[in-house]
Amino acid sequence: MHLRLDFGDERSIGPGKIRLLELINETGSIFGGRPSPRDCPTVRPGCWSTSSTACFREPVVTAQTGGGGGGGAAVTGTGNDIVRLYREMERRAYGASTPEIRSLARLLTPPASSKIH
Amino acid sequence: MHLRLDFGDERSIGPGKIRLLELINETGSIFGGRPSPRDCPTVRPGCWSTSSTACFREPVVTAQTGGGGGGGAAVTGTGNDIVRLYREMERRAYGASTPEIRSLARLLTPPASSKIH
Repeated sequence: MHLRLDFGDERSIGPGKIRLLELINETGSIFGGRPSPRDCPTVRPGCWSTSSTACFREPVVTAQTGGGGGGGAAVTGTGNDIVRLYREMERRAYGASTPEIRSLARLLTPPASSKIH
Repeated sequence: MHLRLDFGDERSIGPGKIRLLELINETGSIFGGRPSPRDCPTVRPGCWSTSSTACFREPVVTAQTGGGGGGGAAVTGTGNDIVRLYREMERRAYGASTPEIRSLARLLTPPASSKIH
């Protein structure tokens, strides 16, 4: 289960953008930031584009030239602030409303992976 | 700002579905449940369809026949449980992470309504 913050006007922060930034941090590359379905099950196809980060005032990723791999990418200070704030928000919000979230989950259809094909 | 719960496999609970159920409760009609952009700024076009509620195990709305208006709709007990649990989750989660949510909001571009056209 993931939490998404909708601020209106197509400005939202959710698990897709955050996981992309974390993967760029882990791999040092924008290509590493293309999440596999396993890494990031809620991310939508084609999510990795400039529109992914257009809702932020400042750049969250910068290109880096040089190095053995012919260049890569790095998450900016602002990008890292966003990851840290989102993960802390997620932890606190989930901790404060676990009973309600579990009750809502029980009212949903089972996940596709548990259905008989 | 609204919170959305993503459970994967296209199963999500957010402000659009919840506001639809609340509007049906208020108006006694599915047609009343078509939210205006003002009522429900994050709802997507065409949201009111069976897919809106297909992620729940049990019906959340029932048709009601008879009456002066030629019939209407009512939210089921399960539907009202979902509204109550979501609003309680939202209140608790927001209360627990207000500083983080406000800090994230400050890193976003301004809303469209505040931009100069």
